[in-house]
Amino acid sequence: MLGGACTYIALSASYFTGVNIVGVVGEDFDPADEDFLRGHNIDLEGLERVPGKTFFWSGVYSEDMNDRTTLATDLNVFADFDPKMPQRYRSMPYLLLGNIQPGLQKSVQGQMSGLRITGGDTMNYWITGFRDQLLATIQTWDFLLINDSEARLLSGETNLKRAAAAILAMGPKAVVIKRGEYGAILFREDGYFMVPGYLLESVFDPTGAGDCFAGGFIGYLAQCGYDLKDKSIDPKHLSRAVIYGSVMGSFCCEQFGVERFRTLTRADIDARFAEFHRATEF
Amino acid sequence: MLGGACTYIALSASYFTGVNIVGVVGEDFDPADEDFLRGHNIDLEGLERVPGKTFFWSGVYSEDMNDRTTLATDLNVFADFDPKMPQRYRSMPYLLLGNIQPGLQKSVQGQMSGLRITGGDTMNYWITGFRDQLLATIQTWDFLLINDSEARLLSGETNLKRAAAAILAMGPKAVVIKRGEYGAILFREDGYFMVPGYLLESVFDPTGAGDCFAGGFIGYLAQCGYDLKDKSIDPKHLSRAVIYGSVMGSFCCEQFGVERFRTLTRADIDARFAEFHRATEF
Repeated sequence: MLGGACTYIALSASYFTGVNIVGVVGEDFDPADEDFLRGHNIDLEGLERVPGKTFFWSGVYSEDMNDRTTLATDLNVFADFDPKMPQRYRSMPYLLLGNIQPGLQKSVQGQMSGLRITGGDTMNYWITGFRDQLLATIQTWDFLLINDSEARLLSGETNLKRAAAAILAMGPKAVVIKRGEYGAILFREDGYFMVPGYLLESVFDPTGAGDCFAGGFIGYLAQCGYDLKDKSIDPKHLSRAVIYGSVMGSFCCEQFGVERFRTLTRADIDARFAEFHRATEF
Repeated sequence: MLGGACTYIALSASYFTGVNIVGVVGEDFDPADEDFLRGHNIDLEGLERVPGKTFFWSGVYSEDMNDRTTLATDLNVFADFDPKMPQRYRSMPYLLLGNIQPGLQKSVQGQMSGLRITGGDTMNYWITGFRDQLLATIQTWDFLLINDSEARLLSGETNLKRAAAAILAMGPKAVVIKRGEYGAILFREDGYFMVPGYLLESVFDPTGAGDCFAGGFIGYLAQCGYDLKDKSIDPKHLSRAVIYGSVMGSFCCEQFGVERFRTLTRADIDARFAEFHRATEF
């Protein structure tokens, strides 16, 4: 079925702002899926169609949904992906760089003019095998999204507080450490913000939850028109972006794949944001 | 060294209210440890001294401090413990029942008159081997403190939200599910409150952290003079008790055993409470 980081990030962010995507699919990509994305007001000019098959992943989750085993990763047309930014995209102010080779992330960022916020994701594979490239890339980011085991790997620190301090020293102005069902923590140079995970009645499918977090996080900041180069930004705005990220990740888990986004409304999102507020204020 | 649930609960609660303890020790119990407890304004009239050796436990923690392996549990004088309430204690309004056989917990509760809040702790051993006795005991409690795996065991539900609903249906007015480094969740019939775990720079020794949580939780409610029989109690007071519980648990981990309580002040506690507020409000 339809999936992939770009899909989840875009669908999630689309509830907050207009979204333009850059990605690659093969000849087998279903036109109905294109319509679904377009229906969420996602601009597909940067979606390249090339001969061959679309990237494919499948896996199996553990009973408690906290671990997964990959059954298949077929790179297909993604193996030779070289992201090209349509001219129209180059002046966009908000950039979320999905989890690809850090050198490609850097080249995309280099094609942009007038960025207000740049952030992105990475993973074990790039941290261990492309460390220098990765460090040169995240150095100029406004935020890095990373999970707890990746944060430990990148920093060489077991303790999350010390891991975050080490990562902030690498350049990003903020680092968001995602802890799966246990929530997330945003670290800034001058403080931190913690959110517990949303308690779902049942976790149907966690695939894409981290990407939906990313989409909600930058989507909210874009909706507000924030500029992370502006030193006077109220840290509470970043905290609210973490909450919207958590809200979007939680909805993602409620149905298989992207299905939840067929019915989800902005009112549902704001109701859950309010529930987070009720359940954490004291 | 000095340890045990009663010790940790009493030391923690002593920062909020006067504490009277009921427990048993052997001839080897160090008079200096009695002085230490008395120095925290803990009343020892209910501390029985009998021939034999004091209860002893030792264990080893995993690298990430989330699991521990018991090396030795010597019940010693604790094997025949039959808690006797001094006459003076029987009219006290706040009762915290430590983790002992549920029938003994019930008998202690039965010796009290005028209780405003009764709560307690339990564990796997009583849940599986003394289930009926446990259900008859917690039925009248105002709150039950339990960790996540115990909540799943007691309720038969994997999902924490459903586990909590099942436990509330057993009688307690509130259930606090403790999740170790990931924080805690308080469930009431009409809502819930979540707190993430405090981020320590280093976790030196988590022994007793759950008991210190219990002491801070009931200590704060006692300090405020609350009565959980009063339906009009503001849920925020219970939420603040969860925060004070988390604060006390976090301090406990900073040094070996009870050492942190030799220097900890109420000002330290209130400063960390304020830090929790800054780090979770949005």
